[in-house]
Amino acid sequence: MHPELIDTLVIPNTTKIIFLIMDGLGGLPGPEGMTELETAQTPNLDALAKKSVCGLLDPVGYGITPGSGPAHFALFGYDPVKNNIGRGILEGAGIDFPMTEQDLLIRINFATINSDGLIVDRRAGRIDNETNRRICQKLQENIPLDGNVEIIFQSVKEHRAVLVLRGDGLAEEIQETDPQHTGMAPLSPRALVPEAKYTETVLNGVINRAREVLSAEPKANMILLRGYAKYRKYPSLFERYRLNALAIASYPMYRGIARLLGMNIARHTETVAEEIAILREHYQDYDYFFLHVKATDSRGEDGNFDGKVTVIEEVDALLPQITDLKPDVLVVTGDHSTPAVLASHSWHPVPVILSAATCRPDMVAYFAERDCIRGGLGRMPMMYLMGQALAHAKRLEKFGA
Amino acid sequence: MHPELIDTLVIPNTTKIIFLIMDGLGGLPGPEGMTELETAQTPNLDALAKKSVCGLLDPVGYGITPGSGPAHFALFGYDPVKNNIGRGILEGAGIDFPMTEQDLLIRINFATINSDGLIVDRRAGRIDNETNRRICQKLQENIPLDGNVEIIFQSVKEHRAVLVLRGDGLAEEIQETDPQHTGMAPLSPRALVPEAKYTETVLNGVINRAREVLSAEPKANMILLRGYAKYRKYPSLFERYRLNALAIASYPMYRGIARLLGMNIARHTETVAEEIAILREHYQDYDYFFLHVKATDSRGEDGNFDGKVTVIEEVDALLPQITDLKPDVLVVTGDHSTPAVLASHSWHPVPVILSAATCRPDMVAYFAERDCIRGGLGRMPMMYLMGQALAHAKRLEKFGA
Repeated sequence: MHPELIDTLVIPNTTKIIFLIMDGLGGLPGPEGMTELETAQTPNLDALAKKSVCGLLDPVGYGITPGSGPAHFALFGYDPVKNNIGRGILEGAGIDFPMTEQDLLIRINFATINSDGLIVDRRAGRIDNETNRRICQKLQENIPLDGNVEIIFQSVKEHRAVLVLRGDGLAEEIQETDPQHTGMAPLSPRALVPEAKYTETVLNGVINRAREVLSAEPKANMILLRGYAKYRKYPSLFERYRLNALAIASYPMYRGIARLLGMNIARHTETVAEEIAILREHYQDYDYFFLHVKATDSRGEDGNFDGKVTVIEEVDALLPQITDLKPDVLVVTGDHSTPAVLASHSWHPVPVILSAATCRPDMVAYFAERDCIRGGLGRMPMMYLMGQALAHAKRLEKFGA
Repeated sequence: MHPELIDTLVIPNTTKIIFLIMDGLGGLPGPEGMTELETAQTPNLDALAKKSVCGLLDPVGYGITPGSGPAHFALFGYDPVKNNIGRGILEGAGIDFPMTEQDLLIRINFATINSDGLIVDRRAGRIDNETNRRICQKLQENIPLDGNVEIIFQSVKEHRAVLVLRGDGLAEEIQETDPQHTGMAPLSPRALVPEAKYTETVLNGVINRAREVLSAEPKANMILLRGYAKYRKYPSLFERYRLNALAIASYPMYRGIARLLGMNIARHTETVAEEIAILREHYQDYDYFFLHVKATDSRGEDGNFDGKVTVIEEVDALLPQITDLKPDVLVVTGDHSTPAVLASHSWHPVPVILSAATCRPDMVAYFAERDCIRGGLGRMPMMYLMGQALAHAKRLEKFGA
């Protein structure tokens, strides 16, 4: 279906597009035989679905359960497989670390090892954020430049941090050092391809030095490395679609993903109501708005069916504050499914509403998985959603004569 | 949709998957305006459809009528176009011939030519199996090694046999010698690419010698060659999906295809009831079961609408013996459509049921082509079915962070 074709057809316009993303929206039937979305009382979403075109989106592919990174890339029209993004980049993006194309980003988990060097706690007793910051500072001060490679420690939270190696000739094909079980020694950061040998040497130096520096720490006396990812620049939403975009998201990872794709990032918020207030405040300033609701996914991950239902109902109640703006295109969907009965992300497709004056309505009258099967968008790979939004916003010209 | 991605996400599990394949299942309306499947009384399949997710599968592509080889490759998750398999390989697999990567396999049709060398019967009066075996023996004894190429004749049945050339430098790009009409001379096995010149020379030698050897035969006095296929090893279901598979199929070709993909092959059976008995007997021994019902296709090919309806009803009556096993995933579908009104394979998509505790039910209440259009799987390329089955059996890990 030629995903790259869209880019060649983009024309400027003043129309406005809103993506309201309820993370992990799709579900599975609970005890009553209905999904979370089918259970929730959602008069506003149902009314919107009725005058819109609906469908089901596959985030990555049939049967594929996506992580948050690939799922959001697909939402924004980026092939989630070609652009598969390492955990290190996601973490770096989430703390707003200014990445350069010389950077290898690595997720650190602080861990506890015993006197035999065996791991007794893979999360160092989930040390507090204050301890995390103190330890990162200590590592930064005591682990100097290694040859030509600059070494940067960045605190995240609890037991998590980011290690950045900055220099030439670094490679990401390195074995993760977390053996995934306690009672074992950390693995070595072995090069998986010959080109990564230099990186292996640098990392061995960092790990050995870190162990010395942390030897007196009661809990976080070791670092475990995973999610090696070389930073590379992605074309932005402005470069691809001429969209001046604002991301409104409370969780760091989603702000990070948005920043990777060149979006502007709204100030931090705690609630969906606050997010919508920011949307309304800045509605004249941008063309495209990514409004991210995390709690649907969190309740799903917790296996909290009723909690997820409640979050959906809360969003529904706030919906008029968005539709009042009369955006040219309003998309309501999720990035993937997180059925409470599975308490995890899943491979099931995600229901979607695309509302626009230019849309061709279908016979869907309720916003629910089972109804969206009959929607006019059909069952569609998620990466094509952005093209649909641009078309409905009259931001694509005709292809061919 | 990145078909190869599935392979990288496979994780071991102890869950069980059954594929119940009714060959040629899809149909077209008969005199009463209903398809074979719509006409059949199938209370068990309908009940299964009601609590499952349904859909329609395109074996190869829109409008493409598949042979049995590509259709089964697609069922097992192998791209049917990239892995298009020559008739020679299928024939060889069907007689359990031990192929090597030096082999060029060729389907032989014994034919009758007159004194002018023109074909008068392209099937040599469908000689009996005994004659076939005797002739193959005679050819084998009288056509020695040609240079460095070993020449092997293998009897199949009636007018059909397999010729194997074993050696280095053989190529499959050779013109078929069957002119498809009587009253014409056999075509020559002309090389279609320069690299096949050597093979052409070898085949001319074999054909000329075979004509001499068979000159006294009353019926089978000539060989016609088609379906040239160089053997290559396919990755097995175990290598790709970590599935220890059992194929339960009565027809040689399907056993052959299963063997090509590394499945274990159950002992020969005559009836579907016997096939299900084997399934139940070996249920603890394997992860994946391919249970093949041939008669739906045979009745369709015969143009026997009512006969096909009856076969479907017989399978429906036996279904509880399969569902009783409570497999984690039960798929019921066909490899392609064989509408009795066409008396041949066709391009129409095939209805499918995917039953699993992890499936998201849709509104389909009857297992029939027309109902499955509204199924939650949508209309899907058949090659993605296996990924769906693995996902629902919790045999795939998450993609990306």
